[in-house]
Amino acid sequence: MKYFVTGGAGFIGSTMVDKLFEDKDAEVTVFDNFCSGQMTYIDKHLENKKFKLVKGDLLNLPLLKESIKNHDFVYHFAANPDIAKAMVETDLDLRLGVIATYNLVEAMRVNNLNKIVYTSGSGVYGDVGYTETAEDFGPLLPSSMYGASKLGAEGIISAFCHMFEMQAWIFRFANVVGRNQTHGVAYDFIRKLKENPNKLLILGDGTQSKSYVHVDDVIAAVQLVLEKSKNKVNVYNVASGDYITVKEIADIVTKEMGLSNVKYEYSGGDRGWKGDVPIVRFNLDKIHILGWKAKYSSKDSVVFSTREMLGIKNMENSAHILK
Amino acid sequence: MKYFVTGGAGFIGSTMVDKLFEDKDAEVTVFDNFCSGQMTYIDKHLENKKFKLVKGDLLNLPLLKESIKNHDFVYHFAANPDIAKAMVETDLDLRLGVIATYNLVEAMRVNNLNKIVYTSGSGVYGDVGYTETAEDFGPLLPSSMYGASKLGAEGIISAFCHMFEMQAWIFRFANVVGRNQTHGVAYDFIRKLKENPNKLLILGDGTQSKSYVHVDDVIAAVQLVLEKSKNKVNVYNVASGDYITVKEIADIVTKEMGLSNVKYEYSGGDRGWKGDVPIVRFNLDKIHILGWKAKYSSKDSVVFSTREMLGIKNMENSAHILK
Repeated sequence: MKYFVTGGAGFIGSTMVDKLFEDKDAEVTVFDNFCSGQMTYIDKHLENKKFKLVKGDLLNLPLLKESIKNHDFVYHFAANPDIAKAMVETDLDLRLGVIATYNLVEAMRVNNLNKIVYTSGSGVYGDVGYTETAEDFGPLLPSSMYGASKLGAEGIISAFCHMFEMQAWIFRFANVVGRNQTHGVAYDFIRKLKENPNKLLILGDGTQSKSYVHVDDVIAAVQLVLEKSKNKVNVYNVASGDYITVKEIADIVTKEMGLSNVKYEYSGGDRGWKGDVPIVRFNLDKIHILGWKAKYSSKDSVVFSTREMLGIKNMENSAHILK
Repeated sequence: MKYFVTGGAGFIGSTMVDKLFEDKDAEVTVFDNFCSGQMTYIDKHLENKKFKLVKGDLLNLPLLKESIKNHDFVYHFAANPDIAKAMVETDLDLRLGVIATYNLVEAMRVNNLNKIVYTSGSGVYGDVGYTETAEDFGPLLPSSMYGASKLGAEGIISAFCHMFEMQAWIFRFANVVGRNQTHGVAYDFIRKLKENPNKLLILGDGTQSKSYVHVDDVIAAVQLVLEKSKNKVNVYNVASGDYITVKEIADIVTKEMGLSNVKYEYSGGDRGWKGDVPIVRFNLDKIHILGWKAKYSSKDSVVFSTREMLGIKNMENSAHILK
């Protein structure tokens, strides 16, 4: 099987690439513009003859059409990682989300590829408070351009499936965390505390409450859904099923960094930035019934990923600390 | 009130412009690229000092930003009218639907405009057979790029409402028919029968069954919703509540044209083109509860609009013929 992985040098993409190579017959092409991807996440594969790297941008349609030739299966992870930036660069997600995804399925169409995994997200559901959103929730009124770009990309992928006989697996992920993170709340907190270990600026009032899911859980979910769900367009929520607040994440990060007496400062308001969704609640019945359940809770996911980012080894062995 | 109407020389747009001028204080700017709009639909206003015409394309963002200055309210009717064309020009709806809509709300943002009416459509619901789709139906998996572009545009408008304090009224219309049609089933049938009154090619098998709603009903629906629904983002289905088949439309058109013994030929298959949705069913509870109900049935709407397109006068007086 020949895989084409957009954003394959990024967080979830690079983790998936490692997983794909567990199959000895797999051949993998990573297509990444390295705007947030890291060479260190994929350099272990550079000597592998079954690995190919294309430094390229999804907005470069001719390069994309050429690069994607002769592959069997597409994983589409590339996206703008900076959700808040749309406030000052309003077309960022339109370009990197919607148009990039159109280019990808168009490149697939002209080369007769027909299977794609797409990483959407909870942003499509908008700001609906404590409502547990299932995959059939509506109306879908995103509150950020990031969410809007996910919704637009889902629609384009669905249209191509119906018009050109493709098949898609669309995943609406919670906040994914893990060793190769390139962004995220704990990632930001670590960065800030390394600069100044005495105080921490928390965006919003710290009570924002969301689900965090470990990337290893996410990969397992994708694999199970691919194996068991065979509709033309398959849509699944993927989350841990429980929730923690931003303040709790700050407590985890400071503890794991061995810091004490860190002064928390809050930017204030009920959300981190304009377009942020402060409360996210998932209904996970569909994927639970299929047979997947997260191994890690939101708290465990954040603790593990914080340790991974800090380079603390033997995480599994120290899992009892979490209790 | 100063109105800015995209697609204002097109079918629904030009009808709305006529309606807006019933208010003596109204000032109206039509922004249209005349790709399907017709000068004859708006030329009666050209001498009116309160009317302004900008021949321009929504993809020309600098012109759009300049033209939209100092308006109070935006009606966004511009769209690609040729749904089937996406099979050969796959980025058509991406450009004329999604990117054009982004440009519009971006032009609104930089000029501090904050109210927009958007004409979405049943295409966002995808191909779900006889399921009556309410506004909260999900998942939204469009089967055409036209539907995908409507969904993407809805998402972008919603994001801008949340990020930049705008307010939107989104209408998911059934097939709208009326005097200024520039496309549609009956429109195509009239065109074909004028070329050859002996035979008529019907796309699909003729059993496709959808709701048709007269543009006068649509305008009344928009006005009522604007008056009564004041959320940040307001989404409403607008349809006649009943359904007719494409074969029945062929029968209406041939009868109204005074033709007999027209030989119907069918292109075959259960739908008109790849991406077409053969069965469309609406749940209309939300707008009925608000106080709007279509005056005309699907059949009456098609009969009236056929007569309007054929230039037959005194339609109201001849309404008994429909019984």
